Amino acid sequence: MNPVLAELHEKARAALDPVHYDFYAGGVGDEVVLAANEAAFRRLALLPRVLRGKQVRADFPVLISPTAFHKLAHPDGELATARALAGTVLVSSMASTVPIADIVEAATGPVWFQLYMQPDFEVTEALVRRAEQAGCAALVITVDSPVFGRHRRDVEHGFHDLPAGLAAENMRNLPGFPGLRKIEMSAFTWENIEHLRELTSLPVWLKGILHPADARLAVGHGVAGIFVSNHGGRQLDLVPAAVDALPAVVDAVAGRLPVVLDGGVRSGGDIALAVAQGASAVGIGRPVLWGLAADGEAGVRRVLDVLRDEFEHVLAMCGGELSRDMVVARC
Amino acid sequence: MNPVLAELHEKARAALDPVHYDFYAGGVGDEVVLAANEAAFRRLALLPRVLRGKQVRADFPVLISPTAFHKLAHPDGELATARALAGTVLVSSMASTVPIADIVEAATGPVWFQLYMQPDFEVTEALVRRAEQAGCAALVITVDSPVFGRHRRDVEHGFHDLPAGLAAENMRNLPGFPGLRKIEMSAFTWENIEHLRELTSLPVWLKGILHPADARLAVGHGVAGIFVSNHGGRQLDLVPAAVDALPAVVDAVAGRLPVVLDGGVRSGGDIALAVAQGASAVGIGRPVLWGLAADGEAGVRRVLDVLRDEFEHVLAMCGGELSRDMVVARC
Amino acid sequence: MNPVLAELHEKARAALDPVHYDFYAGGVGDEVVLAANEAAFRRLALLPRVLRGKQVRADFPVLISPTAFHKLAHPDGELATARALAGTVLVSSMASTVPIADIVEAATGPVWFQLYMQPDFEVTEALVRRAEQAGCAALVITVDSPVFGRHRRDVEHGFHDLPAGLAAENMRNLPGFPGLRKIEMSAFTWENIEHLRELTSLPVWLKGILHPADARLAVGHGVAGIFVSNHGGRQLDLVPAAVDALPAVVDAVAGRLPVVLDGGVRSGGDIALAVAQGASAVGIGRPVLWGLAADGEAGVRRVLDVLRDEFEHVLAMCGGELSRDMVVARC
Amino acid sequence: MNPVLAELHEKARAALDPVHYDFYAGGVGDEVVLAANEAAFRRLALLPRVLRGKQVRADFPVLISPTAFHKLAHPDGELATARALAGTVLVSSMASTVPIADIVEAATGPVWFQLYMQPDFEVTEALVRRAEQAGCAALVITVDSPVFGRHRRDVEHGFHDLPAGLAAENMRNLPGFPGLRKIEMSAFTWENIEHLRELTSLPVWLKGILHPADARLAVGHGVAGIFVSNHGGRQLDLVPAAVDALPAVVDAVAGRLPVVLDGGVRSGGDIALAVAQGASAVGIGRPVLWGLAADGEAGVRRVLDVLRDEFEHVLAMCGGELSRDMVVARC
Repeated sequence: MNPVLAELHEKARAALDPVHYDFYAGGVGDEVVLAANEAAFRRLALLPRVLRGKQVRADFPVLISPTAFHKLAHPDGELATARALAGTVLVSSMASTVPIADIVEAATGPVWFQLYMQPDFEVTEALVRRAEQAGCAALVITVDSPVFGRHRRDVEHGFHDLPAGLAAENMRNLPGFPGLRKIEMSAFTWENIEHLRELTSLPVWLKGILHPADARLAVGHGVAGIFVSNHGGRQLDLVPAAVDALPAVVDAVAGRLPVVLDGGVRSGGDIALAVAQGASAVGIGRPVLWGLAADGEAGVRRVLDVLRDEFEHVLAMCGGELSRDMVVARC
Repeated sequence: MNPVLAELHEKARAALDPVHYDFYAGGVGDEVVLAANEAAFRRLALLPRVLRGKQVRADFPVLISPTAFHKLAHPDGELATARALAGTVLVSSMASTVPIADIVEAATGPVWFQLYMQPDFEVTEALVRRAEQAGCAALVITVDSPVFGRHRRDVEHGFHDLPAGLAAENMRNLPGFPGLRKIEMSAFTWENIEHLRELTSLPVWLKGILHPADARLAVGHGVAGIFVSNHGGRQLDLVPAAVDALPAVVDAVAGRLPVVLDGGVRSGGDIALAVAQGASAVGIGRPVLWGLAADGEAGVRRVLDVLRDEFEHVLAMCGGELSRDMVVARC
Repeated sequence: MNPVLAELHEKARAALDPVHYDFYAGGVGDEVVLAANEAAFRRLALLPRVLRGKQVRADFPVLISPTAFHKLAHPDGELATARALAGTVLVSSMASTVPIADIVEAATGPVWFQLYMQPDFEVTEALVRRAEQAGCAALVITVDSPVFGRHRRDVEHGFHDLPAGLAAENMRNLPGFPGLRKIEMSAFTWENIEHLRELTSLPVWLKGILHPADARLAVGHGVAGIFVSNHGGRQLDLVPAAVDALPAVVDAVAGRLPVVLDGGVRSGGDIALAVAQGASAVGIGRPVLWGLAADGEAGVRRVLDVLRDEFEHVLAMCGGELSRDMVVARC
Repeated sequence: MNPVLAELHEKARAALDPVHYDFYAGGVGDEVVLAANEAAFRRLALLPRVLRGKQVRADFPVLISPTAFHKLAHPDGELATARALAGTVLVSSMASTVPIADIVEAATGPVWFQLYMQPDFEVTEALVRRAEQAGCAALVITVDSPVFGRHRRDVEHGFHDLPAGLAAENMRNLPGFPGLRKIEMSAFTWENIEHLRELTSLPVWLKGILHPADARLAVGHGVAGIFVSNHGGRQLDLVPAAVDALPAVVDAVAGRLPVVLDGGVRSGGDIALAVAQGASAVGIGRPVLWGLAADGEAGVRRVLDVLRDEFEHVLAMCGGELSRDMVVARC
C-alpha cells in the first residue's frame, strides 16, 4: 500500500476511539468479504500498451462512497469531507451527522444523496425533497440492505448509539418517522424504484448490485446507473469480492448504463483495474475516513491526491489506455 | 463462525471426557476430509438478488443428521435431542443410547430411523419393525459403510466400548444378533434395498451417495430421497468435501428425488449455499452434539435457533430466493 | 500418514547414518519435485460407488521400485527385501549390494532386473545375461537418466563412495567395465532398445516416461510396459509430480501397454488413486527402505502389509471398483 | 537456488552499501511483480523426452540484460562485466558508468546498446552515433518507461544521486542535454521508432513488451526483435510475471521475430522453461550484479558458467529438445 495511505490509516487508528475505529473498519460475520474485497485486486494484472505517446485523460474516475457519521471521525464531520472534494463527487450518506443542505453548501464538487428507502413512503419522499432542495445532483438508493448486517465488532463493543450531541441530522422532524437514532431497513421492489423515479427529476442510481440479472433489470427500469458493491463487506459475509462481481455485471449492462465499482479500492492501481474491466468510476470508502480521522479536510484531500497521482502514474505507464484485453489473471 | 455456536462448541469440549469429545470430533485417517467439508463452503459465494420485496419462506430446510450415543454427551441422551426439535426432522441413529420408541415419544417433530443393514436379514427386519412400531416416518439406510472407518483418535485413546450402563438400546434382544456392543458392517446391493422396500411401507432414503451414477441408480430403484454425505469425514479420507460432490449429484437426479446435503454445515450461510445448489435440505451433525453436550435439550434448541435465525437472515439478504445462478466460486 | 509407516520412517531415520539417510531421502535441486510427488495425491479425491456387494479383488497392484545399495540400510541388504515379498514383484536395482542371482534365490516373489544401459554394449549384454541366468522375469530399463541428477544433500555430505566392504555387486568382473564404483550414464535411443529386445527373450519395460509422445513411441517399439516415473524426484527438479503426468500417458497408451505409476506413493489411498486413473500397478520406493532400515526383512514385510491392508480397505469402501470417473480434483 | 548463485548473492549483499544493494534488488510499489517474476517459474513444469541419444546444442541462449551503474557494484564497473562475456551478448545500459566505447573494447562478446529515447531527438541521435561508433551490434530501445517507476527502497534511503566520481558516462557532452545525472523519460510512438530505424543501420530491438497487440505492432514496424520484460519488476507493480506474459506474445509474433524473455531467470531450469515456451533467449539481470559485486569479472563469469552448466544439464535430461508441448502447469 502507498506509504502515505498506510500512515493516514495508522494515524486514524490512533486518533479514533477503538469502538468507532471498529465501527468503520469492521465487516459482517467472519469478515471474509471484507478481506476478499482487497485481496481480489491482487489476483488481477494489467498488460500495459507501449509507444502510444502522451495520452491525455483529464478525468479522475473516483467518487466518495457513502459512509455514515463523519463526526465520529472528526469534529467537522461531513463538512470537512465536502470541502476536500476538488471536483470529485461526494455520495453523501443519508446517515450523515451534518444536514445534507450544509454539506452541499460546503462542497467543492457535486454531491449525490444516498438513501435507504423507508417503510413509510412519506418519510422517503421527505428525504428526497430535502436532497433536492439542498441541491444534490443525484440520488443513490442502497438496495443491498433489506435487513441490517450483523457486525460482531459492534456487538462486542456494545456500540449501539451515537455519542451525545451527534445525530443522523437528515432524519430530524420527518413526518411519521419513529425517531432519530435508527434508520429502518425494509425490503422493496422494482415498483418502488419506479415510484421513486416518478417522484423526482433527479437521476436515480442503485447501489449494491452484484447479480447480472439485477443489472439487466436496472437497465429495464430506467435507472441512471448502478454501483457494483457489497457494502464494503458489511451486509452479507457470503458474497464475492466486489471486483470479482464486476465483469459479469458489465457484460449484462453492455454499455447501457454506467457502472461504478465500490469495495476494496486502496490504490491508483485498483482504480485502473476496475476501469479496465469496464467500470466508469470507483467509489472510495474507508480510505476517506482514514484521511478524515487523521487530519480532517486536509486528510481527505491527501487521500484523494494520492489516489489521483497514483492513477495518473499507472495510466501513463499503460499508454493512457485501459481496456478489458489488458486485464489478465495473476496466476 | 457464529459466536454462540463457537461458545457451545467450547463448552462441549470442556464438558466432555476428551475421549468422547474426540469420538465425536474426529474423522478418518489424516482428517483431510473432515477439514475439507467445512473449508469447501468457504470457496463458494452467493450473488444476492435485490428489490424482490419481502419473500416469505416458511420452512427451515434442516434435519438433524444421525450421530451415535447421545448419552455420552448428556445424561438425557437422545431424549434431550428429540425434545428440542421444534418441527425439525430428527434422523435418529440406529446406535442410539435410548430406544427408538422412547425417542419418538419424546420428540417435538418427525423422527426418521437411520439403519445399517445387518448381515443377518432377520436382524435388519426386526429393526425395521421397531422403527415402524415406534412411529418413525422414514428409514434412512447408510450405504457408505461396507467396512468401518479407522479413527486414529479412538485408536490412540483405546476407545472401544461404551461406558458401563450405556448401550445401543435398539439392538437389545434381536433375533440372532451377536451382541449389544458392536454394530456390524457389511456390503450390500441394490437388490437388498429393493427387498427392504418390499418389507415396509416407510419411505426409504439412502445416505452416503457421492457418485452421480449411484444417484441415478437410486432414482431407478425407487428410493424416497438421498443424502449426499461422506459420513462427516469418518469413513474414507479420500473423498471430496460433501458440498463439492453436491452439484453433480443434483444434476444426475434432475429433480426426480430430494437431495439432502450432509457434511460441514456450520452456519445459515452454509445452509443457503447448499440449498442454492439444489439441496432440498441439509443435515446437521456435530453442532447438535455441541449443543447437547453443553446444555442438553436447551443447547440443541439453541443450535437450531441460531441456524434458523442465520438462514432467515441470509434469505432476507438474498431477496428470499436461492438458485443455482446465484452461486459463484470465490477465487 | 499411516502411523505404522510414520513410525518405521522415524526408526529408519534414527538407525541410519545421516549421510545415508539423506542419500535415500533426498532429491535433486531444490527438491521441488520430491515434495510435489507426495503433495499431488492430496489434490485428488475419489467418489466411491455404493451397494455393489462384496467385490473380490485378489491382486495387490504393487511393485517394489528399484532403489540402490540396500546394505546401506541393513546388513542383510537386498536379501532382506527379497525375502519379504510375499508375492509382490521386486524390481531389483542394477546397483544392488548383493548379486542378482542371490537376490532371486532368496526372493519370495518374482524379481525383475533394473538396468541402466552402459556406453559399452558388451557391458550391457553381460548384465542382461546375468539377469537371465539369475532367473529374473523381466528387464526394466531406466530411460530418464542420460546424465546424473545433482543431489545437494550428497554434495554437502561429501558422499561419493560406498563404505568399505560394500559394492555394486552386479558390476564385478564385467568385460571392459571401468570399475566397481560408478555406474555410467549415457544417452541412448529407441534403436538401442530394439537392439536390447533382440538380445533377450525377457520382457523389456521402460522406466522414466513422462511425456505422452514417448509413451506412444514405447507402444510402437514393442516394449512390455512402462513406468511413469520421475525417478523419485532425483533426476530433474523441473518435472511434474509423477501422478500428475499419469493421465496423459494413460490416454496416449490407450490400453495397449500396462502403465506403472512410481513416485510419492505412501498409502493405500495413493495406490487407489493411481489405479483409478489407469495405472496397472504402482511402484513403492522409499517406504520399503524405511522398513528395511528399521527392521530388515520384517520391516519391509510390515510396510507391504500396511499398504495391502489400506488398499483393500479403500477398495472395500469404494465398492471394489476403481475407475477414472471416480477421480475428481480436490478443490 | 543453485548454491553458488546463492553464495554470490550473499557475498554481494555483504559487499554492497545497503543503499546500493536495495537500488539493485528493489522493485516498484509493494514489489508484487518483483516476487512474481521468480515465483511464476515455480508453477511451470517440463516433460522431458527420452531415448533421443546425445543431442548437441551449441548455443547458450542468454543475454546480459541492461542494468545501470555497474561501478556501484565494483570499481571495474561495466569493464568487468564486458570482460566476462565469453561469447554471451552484453546489452549495455545507456546508464553505464563506463563509456560505451570502452565497454565494447573490453568486451569478450557482442555488445548491444540499450537506449531510452530522449525528449530532445538530437540527444537520442547523438547516443545512437556513440553506440555505432563504439561498435555496438544492435540497439535495444526500452519502451516500458514513459515515466519513472517509484522505488520505495530508494525513497526510504534518500538515494537520488550517484556517489562522487561516478556518472552516466554516455550522457557527457550531449547536444542540448540538461545534465549528467538524470536520464529523462517521455512517452514515444511507433513513428519515433520508425524514425530511429531510418537513422541507423543497426538492428533495433524493443524491450518491455507485454501485450500481444504490441508484439504484433512490433512485427509490423520492422523491429529486429523484442524483449518480453516488465523491467525486472521496477516499472509498474500491476503487471504479470514476465514468463506468464510470454506465451501470448510468442503466439502473436508467430515466429516472425525473435522474442527474448527477461525477468526472474535464476537458473538453467528457468532458461529451459522460457526457451520451451518459445523464447529465443533469456536476459539475465540481477544475478550478473551479484557476481559483479561479489567478485568483479570472475564473479560475472561464475554466474554465466553456473547458468550455462545448469542449462546444458537440463537440456541433456530433456533429450536435447525443448518445445511447447513439453511445458505443463505445475498444479
